[in-house]
Amino acid sequence: MADAERKLTDGRTRIEFETDPSRYRHWKLKVDGDIATLLMDVDEKGALFEGYELKLNSYDLGVDIELADAIERLRFEHPQVRVILLRSGKPRVFCAGANIRMLAGSTHAHKVNFCKFTNETRNGLEDASAASDLKTICVINGTAAGGGYELALAADHIMLVDDGSSAVSLPELPLLAVLPGTGGLTRVTDKRKVRRDLADVFCTTEEGVKGKRAVDWRLVDEVVPGSKLDATVTQRAKEFAARSRRPADGKGIKLEPLKHTRTATGADYSTLSVAVADRLATVTLRGPEAPPPASADAMVEQGAQFWPLRLARELDNAILDLRVNELDTAAVIFKSSGDPEQVIAYDRFLDANRDHWLAREIRALWKRVLKRVDLTSRTLVALIEPGSCFAGTLAELVFATDRSYMLIGTLEGDNKPRATLALADVNFGTYPMSNGLSRLASRFLANPADLDRAKAEQGKMLDADTAAALGLVTFALDDIDWDDEVRVFLEERASFSPDGLTGLEANLRFGGPETMESKIFARLTAWQNWIFQRPNAVGDEGALRRYGSGQKPVYDTKRV
Amino acid sequence: MADAERKLTDGRTRIEFETDPSRYRHWKLKVDGDIATLLMDVDEKGALFEGYELKLNSYDLGVDIELADAIERLRFEHPQVRVILLRSGKPRVFCAGANIRMLAGSTHAHKVNFCKFTNETRNGLEDASAASDLKTICVINGTAAGGGYELALAADHIMLVDDGSSAVSLPELPLLAVLPGTGGLTRVTDKRKVRRDLADVFCTTEEGVKGKRAVDWRLVDEVVPGSKLDATVTQRAKEFAARSRRPADGKGIKLEPLKHTRTATGADYSTLSVAVADRLATVTLRGPEAPPPASADAMVEQGAQFWPLRLARELDNAILDLRVNELDTAAVIFKSSGDPEQVIAYDRFLDANRDHWLAREIRALWKRVLKRVDLTSRTLVALIEPGSCFAGTLAELVFATDRSYMLIGTLEGDNKPRATLALADVNFGTYPMSNGLSRLASRFLANPADLDRAKAEQGKMLDADTAAALGLVTFALDDIDWDDEVRVFLEERASFSPDGLTGLEANLRFGGPETMESKIFARLTAWQNWIFQRPNAVGDEGALRRYGSGQKPVYDTKRV
Repeated sequence: MADAERKLTDGRTRIEFETDPSRYRHWKLKVDGDIATLLMDVDEKGALFEGYELKLNSYDLGVDIELADAIERLRFEHPQVRVILLRSGKPRVFCAGANIRMLAGSTHAHKVNFCKFTNETRNGLEDASAASDLKTICVINGTAAGGGYELALAADHIMLVDDGSSAVSLPELPLLAVLPGTGGLTRVTDKRKVRRDLADVFCTTEEGVKGKRAVDWRLVDEVVPGSKLDATVTQRAKEFAARSRRPADGKGIKLEPLKHTRTATGADYSTLSVAVADRLATVTLRGPEAPPPASADAMVEQGAQFWPLRLARELDNAILDLRVNELDTAAVIFKSSGDPEQVIAYDRFLDANRDHWLAREIRALWKRVLKRVDLTSRTLVALIEPGSCFAGTLAELVFATDRSYMLIGTLEGDNKPRATLALADVNFGTYPMSNGLSRLASRFLANPADLDRAKAEQGKMLDADTAAALGLVTFALDDIDWDDEVRVFLEERASFSPDGLTGLEANLRFGGPETMESKIFARLTAWQNWIFQRPNAVGDEGALRRYGSGQKPVYDTKRV
Repeated sequence: MADAERKLTDGRTRIEFETDPSRYRHWKLKVDGDIATLLMDVDEKGALFEGYELKLNSYDLGVDIELADAIERLRFEHPQVRVILLRSGKPRVFCAGANIRMLAGSTHAHKVNFCKFTNETRNGLEDASAASDLKTICVINGTAAGGGYELALAADHIMLVDDGSSAVSLPELPLLAVLPGTGGLTRVTDKRKVRRDLADVFCTTEEGVKGKRAVDWRLVDEVVPGSKLDATVTQRAKEFAARSRRPADGKGIKLEPLKHTRTATGADYSTLSVAVADRLATVTLRGPEAPPPASADAMVEQGAQFWPLRLARELDNAILDLRVNELDTAAVIFKSSGDPEQVIAYDRFLDANRDHWLAREIRALWKRVLKRVDLTSRTLVALIEPGSCFAGTLAELVFATDRSYMLIGTLEGDNKPRATLALADVNFGTYPMSNGLSRLASRFLANPADLDRAKAEQGKMLDADTAAALGLVTFALDDIDWDDEVRVFLEERASFSPDGLTGLEANLRFGGPETMESKIFARLTAWQNWIFQRPNAVGDEGALRRYGSGQKPVYDTKRV
């Protein structure tokens, strides 16, 4: 069940991540040639939970789910779009950030899940820029406060109206005793590269910074007089569009609604099933039913039914659902069934068409979905059994797990083909983790020669002993040990402290370098999660609870 | 006052960081030519707080204060020592890690301060290796559990006895629901580069790993049969000593006791004063009373009285004292008084003698002290006033602060020379932060040209307007605004949530790259601090409280 002190609105019992523009309540998406306008116009009455209104373009998870959907649709449905204009549909306010009453009334788990998703959405905007040359220009005509400015920070270019009142601010600390935790602090220091002492002044000044100072301090890219705003926005959009290498002739595909039904124990999708029992969620992925299409045109023809795209979207939805609706789950267990040669065939097809816009978008989507898996705070396990198809892109899930178990040979009385694991080109750089390295490079930090050794085995169907010898799986077990070993491990895992595991996995999964993105999820998020536990923020006398009550917060003055 | 639910032993009211080998209760330091042995032999009855005993070579802050002291003395008093043998004085146990009953009974603030200091001590061992070629070989003859193995991880070489029972382990998560948070997880992934899934198995296996598997998994460097232990240790020590470039003829200096007295409002040291009032601690540093000595030999002759060394040691002590004994302090304000030309003269003297072992050690000590300042969870402020001497090494403190205020010209009715700031070679790489960059490079991430511009001004006495134009200070104010602006800022700062500021500053201070060291203080520590707030660890039914009680912990099974 969804975890929040507040009740979901409209009688919902689960948080749903699927939507489409016809159902948007908070955003208006308008496409005009190579320019799209994403207008934020939050419906005050459209909150996800009961008990608060979304005033002043403030947002909750429901608002962000629509934004995430809109960005995906621009990438797949409108490949000709080169520039997103991110604007507000309200006068005098761009966005007031995350809704404070929502935050004050949410459980700790919901706050953390909410921030994680909004972070992923903002990273998604940056990924659209980096991977697809789809640029975002943010136009701030009014105030962009807190999460509102953090959203702007994800854009490639920030324009601020110079009218004496429009301003950008990160007032979380002075007003609420929490951090600008949706990437704000990290993007200020590492993306905008604001000098640290000026950043200190900025982040402790409720009213924020406006006009020329906002440019001087690198907080925005330009200030524009109100009278020249429309002309300047049009001009900037044209400039950015002219520099983009997005295909002018890309014919979009329709992201049709996912086909999924809830079952007694989980959910069935067209390419995977989820079964939840005993605090374990088993996600069984199914390989393709047919060989890849004959051509890129045929792939476009298949559109959202094209197997790699369908699976990526369904997996993404399943993971998000588990994250926020199945909080009691200790582990996510990945299994698969199908023909590994067919999985490899699809990877080869996408390799061969790597310059086609749709192949590129599908690969970039897989990259994001796999990052979402990396950042899911559940123990991740792969069980590689007879009849499975962990090859190429699907093998990447094995490398995303905390541990993998592979069966040697076959199971008695079972005629499925023996378990294999197969590598493809796609496992060596196509899907970087947030630390910038491929999962195999992260795995073999100690000795790059191990990576070369694995590379040499590309395309082969590796049996369990070989996979273990190559260091690709944690344990290779024969059928005598299999059931007991796996059962004991899962039972033990479920007996550990869920918080301890969250912290452990957040450390062990991300060895090696850090990037701006990984810093957001490590340094910034971990500190914010700490603050989200501290009485100075969330206690009865804390700032988050007392905001708007007319009463001042009372702080324990001890520094920790 | 020291913050801990428990009372300090022996009637102490403050935690003292100064000690010397004649007062050690837990360590034996033996020097034999170029090999030193650091024998951990913890006195069960020698706990820092009442209410627990330090069984099985477990440690508390008091034990670590002695270790930190011993490492410093080896660097300054025994420059001929090339290898530290880190061993246990107890049979069958190397070290059981941080004392669990101490942790269970400590306040959150004490837990955090304790972990920070132990982290700094382990970093100190690694700094001895990197900066001074003083190598540590850890000999594990028995069990090294939790913090015991984390201590070993700081060594250059780990030897484990192969006797069927000696093992290394990180049982924090299964036993206590907390993390191996003193660098353990980060050193496992980033220093030892243990494969992430094997690290997962290791960190969830109470009994740990022993014998050949410990080598195969990269957890130790070698296993040695008990019968060959002494001979092998002697041989390894010789090999490491032979490779070290530490001077064979270095004549050590004596680290005499610091001269300091507590005053009604703080403390007086020979080179600085601390005054605490209104939740603000003002640290006023005094420049040298005399020019630098004529030669390196004369510097050795001055020994611990040599001004840069004296100031570094006193500043380190003052900062540590503020951290753990003045928890209510919102900000540390750095002021200085003296002749900036003299400060620069000392920096030039150390530059000229950069190859002398003592000059090298003093510079390395300053590097560590400045890092300690960076990691101090108080707002750091520099006030650059007439008569101050923020030049060279002392200017580095200005760049360590969150904000700096500089007075333009002089104050009315005051005949002190106008405020100046002066850069020296030492500000451009001698004192890297934990992110690997100099403070000025971190400051000017946006535009390296700003760094070059500052470099060109080396040696000049810069006035406030120039310093502000160069981006070296936050605000340049004239005497009309000075008092009010500074007062309002400090009052406002003290009104903010202390936790919010801790998180904000931990983010804004460390823009740019991350290193293993900075990851320990960011990703790992921040998660550990979060866990130290979670009921699953610290609640009445949590693992830390219930450990040893015979009762199993009860966990909230929700993953966050």
